[in-house]
Amino acid sequence: VKPLAAGVDLGGTNIATAIVDASGRVRSRDRRPTLAGRGPNAVLARMADSVRSAARVAGLGLRDLAAVGVGSPGPLDPKRGVVLYSENLRWRNVPVAAVLRRALGRRVFLENDANVAALGEAWAGAGRGEPVVLCVTLGTGVGGGLILDGRIYRGAWDVGCEIGHIVVEPGGPPTRYGNRGVLEQYVSATGIVRMAREAGLKPRGGEAVLTARDMMARARSGDPRARRVYREAGRMLGVGLTTAIHLLNPSMVVFAGGVSAAGPLLYGPMRREIARRCFRASLRGLKFRRAALGGDMGAVGAARLAFLGLEGAV
Amino acid sequence: VKPLAAGVDLGGTNIATAIVDASGRVRSRDRRPTLAGRGPNAVLARMADSVRSAARVAGLGLRDLAAVGVGSPGPLDPKRGVVLYSENLRWRNVPVAAVLRRALGRRVFLENDANVAALGEAWAGAGRGEPVVLCVTLGTGVGGGLILDGRIYRGAWDVGCEIGHIVVEPGGPPTRYGNRGVLEQYVSATGIVRMAREAGLKPRGGEAVLTARDMMARARSGDPRARRVYREAGRMLGVGLTTAIHLLNPSMVVFAGGVSAAGPLLYGPMRREIARRCFRASLRGLKFRRAALGGDMGAVGAARLAFLGLEGAV
Repeated sequence: VKPLAAGVDLGGTNIATAIVDASGRVRSRDRRPTLAGRGPNAVLARMADSVRSAARVAGLGLRDLAAVGVGSPGPLDPKRGVVLYSENLRWRNVPVAAVLRRALGRRVFLENDANVAALGEAWAGAGRGEPVVLCVTLGTGVGGGLILDGRIYRGAWDVGCEIGHIVVEPGGPPTRYGNRGVLEQYVSATGIVRMAREAGLKPRGGEAVLTARDMMARARSGDPRARRVYREAGRMLGVGLTTAIHLLNPSMVVFAGGVSAAGPLLYGPMRREIARRCFRASLRGLKFRRAALGGDMGAVGAARLAFLGLEGAV
Repeated sequence: VKPLAAGVDLGGTNIATAIVDASGRVRSRDRRPTLAGRGPNAVLARMADSVRSAARVAGLGLRDLAAVGVGSPGPLDPKRGVVLYSENLRWRNVPVAAVLRRALGRRVFLENDANVAALGEAWAGAGRGEPVVLCVTLGTGVGGGLILDGRIYRGAWDVGCEIGHIVVEPGGPPTRYGNRGVLEQYVSATGIVRMAREAGLKPRGGEAVLTARDMMARARSGDPRARRVYREAGRMLGVGLTTAIHLLNPSMVVFAGGVSAAGPLLYGPMRREIARRCFRASLRGLKFRRAALGGDMGAVGAARLAFLGLEGAV
């Protein structure tokens, strides 16, 4: 029998759990609201319930699971299994692995959500078989994960790969961390809304605020200001990836997150910028892909984390 | 007896060879001009002679050497041991490893000079014992090497880590590779001379051209324009390293090359920029050091490459 693991993708809004076999196939799923407002203990109890429920759906007991992996917002300490801080969840020093281990009687491995998403795509998604996968999540913010021969690149203290915070315009707008002109300020949903506002765009159709989704619709229907916003986002994405390509020489870049759905609006200007700026040697075999696992990405990656953890390979 | 290896550092001007033991201690050295103008075969013969001579000085024969490592300008193919192209040497597709193996009767391993320098410093120099060492060579150009737990980070196709070509000012001056505003244009000797010229500085004391060395002397003696040039170079170095720190999370950055001797003129503005822009989590334990191996750096790194090659670990 193939070993099975549970992967839990903990988000600010939802908990998504999957039971996954060693080949990356999803056997069952559970999805429920996080309800972060109820505090860490309630959320951890909901995570444990979600694992039990997903196991039940697959016709399994907890003892059939080799281990449990968790992807969480960070920063966190993977070795101790503790989320150090999450603004989204309003958590500080929450011992996720210890609590879930007690609740479920299984070993638990913890990793930040961007790394886990990258691991999922590199293992069983768009990056299957690729030696060096850089996964870039274009969501509310911009996150990154680098997977080398199937393992997470962690750097010295588990801080990398923070691609959202690389500098693309040194005199650009200030971030609240003291940096300026970082990738996230241009190509996240938040950044797109900021640029749209600066371009004089207003909410429409009874909406209270500008959204990246609405900007995408307007750009697609030909609104020149909205198109310009995406062109600028794509250009900056190209500048940032040029730097990442020069430093990391990935074989594939995988895009995930809501903004990654923008298509040619975003990827056209990005590709032009990269083609102009990068060495031919680094571009020759380089592939750009959208994430293939959709809503399973985090949970599948978390399950892979559990398998790697059992092998002592995380 | 400890195994010994020969390391050969092939430069545009000099060939520097060292016989090195498994603990990183240099037993003997040989240094001679490259005389690249005489063509690849003559240079390869000089490299072989240099190894023989260094072995003789140490009281050894070629059979006492476990293997030979070579650091060379690139791009090159480490697997086949071929230098694909070097503008400096005017080489194209030179099978260095095969030729030297025939001449010396020893296994030969080839790697690009920036990676080999980084390997030397991480193994036996400033970075000894550090988990993630980013080595930045500030010379005529800017090169980089990333050493993870003692191994060279290669990326997918041996192109990374080209830190000299990361973008620090997207609208900056064009490079001849089609990129703009890359780190190398600000913090290499060439870049410093360019900025000095743009600041209106002229050659002095009978010199025909501006040099980075003279700019350093002028800045140290208080010339405000020369100081501004170094301030700008340091600021851009800080911007570039901010990005490298966010992507790679190194535990140490090692600076090598002529420009790295500039001291506080360069490192003051660099540190201010980094302190302002980086996360505290990535800076807490991060060390900045000058290279410790001096002129032995490349040869010692090449010897380490030979030891790793024999273990099948390159």
